[in-house]
Amino acid sequence: MATFFTQTSFPSHSLSKTFDTHFAAAPKVNACVSFRARRQVGLRVSSGLIEPDGGKLVELVVRDSERDLKKGEALSLPRIKLSRIDLQWVHVLSEGWATPLKGFMKEAEFLQTLHFNSLRLGDGSVVNMSVPIVLAIDDAQKHRIGDNKRVALFDSKGDPVAILNDIEIYKHPKEERIARTWGTTASGLPYVEQTITNAGNWLIGGDLESLNPSSTMTDLIIFDWPRQNSVRNSQGNADAVFAFQLRNPVHNGHALLMTDTRRRLLEMGYKNPVLLLHPLGGYTKADDVPLDWRMKQHEKVLEDGVLDPETTVVSIFPSPMHYAGPTEVQWHAKARINAGANFYIVGRDPAGMSHPVEKRDLYDADHGKKVLSMAPGLERLNILPFRVAAYDKTQGKMAFFDPSRPQDFLFISGTKMRTLARNKESPPDGFMCPGGWKVLVDYYDSLLPSSNGKVPEAVPA
Amino acid sequence: MATFFTQTSFPSHSLSKTFDTHFAAAPKVNACVSFRARRQVGLRVSSGLIEPDGGKLVELVVRDSERDLKKGEALSLPRIKLSRIDLQWVHVLSEGWATPLKGFMKEAEFLQTLHFNSLRLGDGSVVNMSVPIVLAIDDAQKHRIGDNKRVALFDSKGDPVAILNDIEIYKHPKEERIARTWGTTASGLPYVEQTITNAGNWLIGGDLESLNPSSTMTDLIIFDWPRQNSVRNSQGNADAVFAFQLRNPVHNGHALLMTDTRRRLLEMGYKNPVLLLHPLGGYTKADDVPLDWRMKQHEKVLEDGVLDPETTVVSIFPSPMHYAGPTEVQWHAKARINAGANFYIVGRDPAGMSHPVEKRDLYDADHGKKVLSMAPGLERLNILPFRVAAYDKTQGKMAFFDPSRPQDFLFISGTKMRTLARNKESPPDGFMCPGGWKVLVDYYDSLLPSSNGKVPEAVPA
Repeated sequence: MATFFTQTSFPSHSLSKTFDTHFAAAPKVNACVSFRARRQVGLRVSSGLIEPDGGKLVELVVRDSERDLKKGEALSLPRIKLSRIDLQWVHVLSEGWATPLKGFMKEAEFLQTLHFNSLRLGDGSVVNMSVPIVLAIDDAQKHRIGDNKRVALFDSKGDPVAILNDIEIYKHPKEERIARTWGTTASGLPYVEQTITNAGNWLIGGDLESLNPSSTMTDLIIFDWPRQNSVRNSQGNADAVFAFQLRNPVHNGHALLMTDTRRRLLEMGYKNPVLLLHPLGGYTKADDVPLDWRMKQHEKVLEDGVLDPETTVVSIFPSPMHYAGPTEVQWHAKARINAGANFYIVGRDPAGMSHPVEKRDLYDADHGKKVLSMAPGLERLNILPFRVAAYDKTQGKMAFFDPSRPQDFLFISGTKMRTLARNKESPPDGFMCPGGWKVLVDYYDSLLPSSNGKVPEAVPA
Repeated sequence: MATFFTQTSFPSHSLSKTFDTHFAAAPKVNACVSFRARRQVGLRVSSGLIEPDGGKLVELVVRDSERDLKKGEALSLPRIKLSRIDLQWVHVLSEGWATPLKGFMKEAEFLQTLHFNSLRLGDGSVVNMSVPIVLAIDDAQKHRIGDNKRVALFDSKGDPVAILNDIEIYKHPKEERIARTWGTTASGLPYVEQTITNAGNWLIGGDLESLNPSSTMTDLIIFDWPRQNSVRNSQGNADAVFAFQLRNPVHNGHALLMTDTRRRLLEMGYKNPVLLLHPLGGYTKADDVPLDWRMKQHEKVLEDGVLDPETTVVSIFPSPMHYAGPTEVQWHAKARINAGANFYIVGRDPAGMSHPVEKRDLYDADHGKKVLSMAPGLERLNILPFRVAAYDKTQGKMAFFDPSRPQDFLFISGTKMRTLARNKESPPDGFMCPGGWKVLVDYYDSLLPSSNGKVPEAVPA
């Protein structure tokens, strides 16, 4: 039990003090709001437990009253057309997930991110920042921008989505960026192939003014979800928010872990710990289950009562996925500080995948949680390492692995799960609620017509 | 002038306060001691200006009274035979250059170094640490060590040099180590080929007990130089120590820069700024000029009065060279904090070299000084960026480059300098003092008999 909370053991006698201090110090209440508003059973939770990085959430959407003016300005500026992933980063920045960043990184921020996984602020304090949030342009674009200090960012439909002010253009050291972010330069890294390999030789940073509510900018609009970091619906009474980042369907092993975490937080003296079930909504690699299907699956898991709807908030983290293991898990955790979470659950090999060339995992499975527990700027977030759950054949359900009887346990990886669903095979009873499993099978069914009978092969990850 | 000192502008009116504070806070005086003791003209300098990292210098040499006992113990322990570079790291660690490290890194230190270029100490403070100081072992060695908690380290002659206590053995993620340290995994990185490519799959960390005075452990003994970090000869009265790291012969451009730095420190109100001319003494790549020849050259430069012997301390930094650019320059600076320097001169492309595969420099020439100015744990070191010096044809001497008349200046790189000396060609008058240049020519002459007329080609660096 003593090893469960690695970073802060948080004995119950100190809880009220910590809690009060955080509450008192928070000038602004961060609201984690349920995506299920459309179902009218949404849980509303507020949490003043933890302040955003730098003390104040940096939201970058222009006021409604200024929008038309700014759009007019945008039309007169040099234009940069954004990719789908660029647009997801505009979304991330606009809502303040990367607080205190004010826009795409300038060189000083980029270099600190690459070398230190953190940024030093003007007052000497340090915040975590482990993945570069940058915008690449090519030689011709740089030439077109010339001496302008502002540019406009356009989406693929030709609409202006943002203005970048006080810009700085600097070299894009692609090899170095890849090596320092992923710890490898092997070909076949999904995010690298999508965004870096063919990107321009320059990066452009600056202060972002987002012209639209971010939910209208990306595909995530289909979920009708409110802005995560805005102040609204703050009538909740959570005294602990524990975040669970995921990009896979929820099986009963995950659920066991989340339920068990809540139990432990109650034991520690918290009165109303709330789970922030927080699927990643941006780019994922081709063989991952797409967000819309994952959201349907998560909904079933809540409907079936595998997770308690009364103490669970489901919301979307709009970031694209890097698959950069120990480097990326810091970003996943840091962004949840800005969402108001004060506990973060970390699993085996977070944000990891197989090495794209060699027959091994890209990262040591334990490095993610170790790095997270030592990362600069994350000291005030309580890191909760996973206990390993597996299918206990003697009980016919997911249970915490008991090393004294390994022969009784079956490990079903994400890869294995996807392969079973693709082949319409059933997992063992008790692995996932039937409603949730059916969503997965339906997803793989849906692929058949549009891809000439070929379903994406599961890539081990 | 305002841009000359990037990190701390250090106006003269605040000097006395800063100075007093540092003096008062330093519980121990760090002495930078001249290597020229053997010439009996040695300048002795003490500086209480800056405390070692973590507050106390960590020296790891056993007391004389314990040496025989410890050597006896070493003979009974599992043995690890050290390479020449391993031995240089024992030397570095023993003398406290890597303070607060107590020995070869354990995994928590290794991971923090790779990801954050810094270590968080028990009290929450942060010190810089950018290059892994690790010891690799292979499967057979790991097997031989078994459950032992101590091992003995032996040199190539079969003598015990140190004991490693409370050991921890962990995986050696070679690709990741290389990518995160160098920002590339291209083949042909000199240090990588020397120490990583064929190294074992495990790293062993632990607390070091060094059995011999470090000066007896490595080739550096030929200089009869005292331990750098020990308290001795502290009768000096320097009030500023500015360090100049180098691995090349000193030409008049370097000298101009050092002389000019002293002038500026005097202008700022310091009474006795002292130059720490600090050549790197450990492993360098094959085409660099070896330490013994460089030391002869530096001696000539002082004899000829190009640098002022009365205000210059020449001493050796025993570290091996990584050629890891912005990552390594932090190590070079951090180690000089532990030597007592409070100003550090940084040049163009520090610790850089050509890309081993592509036709370009491996690092952006400006990244080193930028990264250094933002590096965690180096905040209290004043970073002095180089002004570019070049040969001014109109004056017939090295001078600060004047961008208004570029046609008047000749840039002579280290590569070009080595090529001229190798071919017994003379550089322009005023590039280097004649005595110093003769040492270089003599060096290349000395190579001829032993290498069948073949002199190492200059590798651009």
